[in-house]
Amino acid sequence: MTVNYDGTRYNGFQTQPDGNTIQDHLEKAIATIIGEKPKIHGSGRTDAGVHAIGQVFHFLTESTVPAERWPLALNGRLPKDIIVTNAREVHLDFHSRRSAKRKTYRYTINANQYPDVFLRHMQLHHPGKLNIEAMREALSHFIGTHDFTTFASKHSEKQSHIRTIYEARLEVDYSMTRPDTRDQGILHFYITGSGFLQHMVRIIMGTLVQVGEGKHAPDAISNMIAAEDRSEAGPTAISKALTMWGVHYEEFNT
Amino acid sequence: MTVNYDGTRYNGFQTQPDGNTIQDHLEKAIATIIGEKPKIHGSGRTDAGVHAIGQVFHFLTESTVPAERWPLALNGRLPKDIIVTNAREVHLDFHSRRSAKRKTYRYTINANQYPDVFLRHMQLHHPGKLNIEAMREALSHFIGTHDFTTFASKHSEKQSHIRTIYEARLEVDYSMTRPDTRDQGILHFYITGSGFLQHMVRIIMGTLVQVGEGKHAPDAISNMIAAEDRSEAGPTAISKALTMWGVHYEEFNT
Repeated sequence: MTVNYDGTRYNGFQTQPDGNTIQDHLEKAIATIIGEKPKIHGSGRTDAGVHAIGQVFHFLTESTVPAERWPLALNGRLPKDIIVTNAREVHLDFHSRRSAKRKTYRYTINANQYPDVFLRHMQLHHPGKLNIEAMREALSHFIGTHDFTTFASKHSEKQSHIRTIYEARLEVDYSMTRPDTRDQGILHFYITGSGFLQHMVRIIMGTLVQVGEGKHAPDAISNMIAAEDRSEAGPTAISKALTMWGVHYEEFNT
Repeated sequence: MTVNYDGTRYNGFQTQPDGNTIQDHLEKAIATIIGEKPKIHGSGRTDAGVHAIGQVFHFLTESTVPAERWPLALNGRLPKDIIVTNAREVHLDFHSRRSAKRKTYRYTINANQYPDVFLRHMQLHHPGKLNIEAMREALSHFIGTHDFTTFASKHSEKQSHIRTIYEARLEVDYSMTRPDTRDQGILHFYITGSGFLQHMVRIIMGTLVQVGEGKHAPDAISNMIAAEDRSEAGPTAISKALTMWGVHYEEFNT
């Protein structure tokens, strides 16, 4: 199944002791249909406050409800900020996380003078001067296969920190930019990789903001990566500006 | 001053007995700066739940705070969903409402299969089949100078219901539309006129939806207008999908 959510009110995707996660709400809604609590598996965790367009999860069921009926049935049982948009039957060897080939995240910086009153729950507001071309150049240095220890939480428990970034691009939206102001546009960063370590996109973004502020040269990124040391990178940028933007599988995309 | 607001939590722009209006919050914030409660005048009312990009208001003050300092000073005192984006000194004969030459409103229908999880607070969700070209044609029949009694609230107390619609256009955003689904796009209706009667845009929209559903032919609009009878038009569409999109003055635009 594919699910979109506004992560503002939730403690992230994955079930945890404090409750109020996307997984909790999905499992509860599914349980009212199949009569027992399922165990769902997401394509990856998202932190508290992080959003998703096209998060994918799967579960095993013997329910005879046809796949195409599930989205409406679930949406009627879910909070309004969690919306299932697709459901299909898959082979038993499909696994939302292990079968995923690529994931894309989007991170959004509002570099206009004032916050966007309608989208402030999904933007980092940075009215200060940013060197957008320097940020774009720095972004390109992440592409390729690297050990991303510098850009992973120190609490990462993964055995390997080697990941591949396939694509990283910056799109600037000037549609809300007013003439004769210090507005710099809405900056959408799209990063596609084989997988992402804990806080990886947010640490990349915290570092890119420092590049934009002139605190690092764009080509400093390569040395930071080579250092394999979290303290070489910038801070972890706020979660609310991050959206899981899609998961790609070999057989079909979502 | 120019102000943007997310109207979701508010009882409309103009002060009323129940309180919690945009005007109340603005006057309270201004009072903390000038030491006395001002009386502000908006370019027009917006109903409860209606949003604004570029609502304009003015007030008289002897304050010596320079105009350019006001936005940041006020934003620090306002709720996060009300943002002042511009301030300037004007002649004493300027009046936000009386000097306004044109106003533009936007109304948004999400005609995709599922609600947009991030923008559902500003969209009417209509997943059912809509004839978009019929709606576009119907929209064009509103252009011109007409008596809009048919498209005004029965509670309207205006002496004249004659208004001029200068421009009315429909833009369809297909960026969130998924292939092989019943998604029809996000429909943004922009209507610019000399002024608008109570509920006028919402009644126009409620009628256009009926046209889209095939309940009226597009050219039925002209007869509806000619009837000068509220009962000839469709229902008043929900307020949350409406945004005041700008006010135009002779001397300067916002």
